Amino acid sequence: MRLAELSGRSGVSTATIKYYLREGLLAPGRQVNATTAEYDEDHLRRLRLVRSMIQVGRLPVATVREVLRHVDDDSLGRTIRLGAALWALPQVPEPDEDDDHVRAAHREVDELLDRLGWSNAKLLLTISPAYRSLVVAVAAMRRLGYDWDPELLVAYAELMHQAAILDLNFVETRPSEAEKVETAVLGAVLVEPMLQALHRLAQEEESARRYGFE
Amino acid sequence: MRLAELSGRSGVSTATIKYYLREGLLAPGRQVNATTAEYDEDHLRRLRLVRSMIQVGRLPVATVREVLRHVDDDSLGRTIRLGAALWALPQVPEPDEDDDHVRAAHREVDELLDRLGWSNAKLLLTISPAYRSLVVAVAAMRRLGYDWDPELLVAYAELMHQAAILDLNFVETRPSEAEKVETAVLGAVLVEPMLQALHRLAQEEESARRYGFE
Repeated sequence: MRLAELSGRSGVSTATIKYYLREGLLAPGRQVNATTAEYDEDHLRRLRLVRSMIQVGRLPVATVREVLRHVDDDSLGRTIRLGAALWALPQVPEPDEDDDHVRAAHREVDELLDRLGWSNAKLLLTISPAYRSLVVAVAAMRRLGYDWDPELLVAYAELMHQAAILDLNFVETRPSEAEKVETAVLGAVLVEPMLQALHRLAQEEESARRYGFE
Repeated sequence: MRLAELSGRSGVSTATIKYYLREGLLAPGRQVNATTAEYDEDHLRRLRLVRSMIQVGRLPVATVREVLRHVDDDSLGRTIRLGAALWALPQVPEPDEDDDHVRAAHREVDELLDRLGWSNAKLLLTISPAYRSLVVAVAAMRRLGYDWDPELLVAYAELMHQAAILDLNFVETRPSEAEKVETAVLGAVLVEPMLQALHRLAQEEESARRYGFE
């Protein structure tokens, strides 16, 4: 397809597509003559991925480039490719390891992972930003003096594990390995805001069921 | 307690506490003489709430003030107080109602709520930011050409409903009405990042279980 059709089918303006081409976020089309290039379904798919990272995920161009570098690196196994792409997404700041609450949160998260039997996640714990994010979130709760029952964290974790199983089941419906990895990245960008919206709506529903509107 | 003890117990510096007092985010202490004020457990609790909204939720001071105005308005019923406080938290931009994908997403979200039996949430739909957020998230997926099975949205929604039940069960353990409302606001600020971190970690765990580290 020509640039105009790629623009029509993706809903992205030709000026923006040209910008993505210049920035290396989209591979050049096949040049058919001095002024015309042909694009294919792979271009369309990649364009949608780039668009959602920039427009929905609000990622800077440099981050998008880094994520795509991992997505396209087929020398890595699927777990590492999925992980490496997620690791390039925006993350919480590093926890301050000199802080007592952070050290306590490390122990608490480790106990949680043992309790859950997430032994694979534990192997990744020294390098995974998701592990660090969890330590930061738990430390924030404890610093504010909230002493939640550890069983509550276990219950939340099991719900999110069910969500992750749905995510990966969907990823596995994609035909090619490249699409599987792309879909996993999109999942992080598109599914997280959807889960957050569903969570807030469910809170309103449950609250109205329990307390009415009085 | 004196200012120094309030600072020690909350981990918030006296300079920051004085700033919150000037900005009206914290009620003045009981003046015992010209230079000294007494603070109580309500001050400590409120200080932790303000701190978590600003430091963890990264809310601007004006937003914190608006959230607290709803939290403190005991003329409202509990559902509306909980909702009104959540509604003052940062939200996604308004959906563009002239957009075909947004109109389609509205229909899809309405069908989803019918399917789920969330009739109370549906009553709120014209005013709830959570409803708008869900429309925006669904419209973004559709605009990008992702045609997910509506059953997948139902499954995600049911998981988030389970999370909301855990949230409200915890809220109900708080002794006073004021603490219940405050805890609900904290839930939005603290639980959402924790669920997001657990979700990403669960994805890594599930991916490693399925594909190993090859």
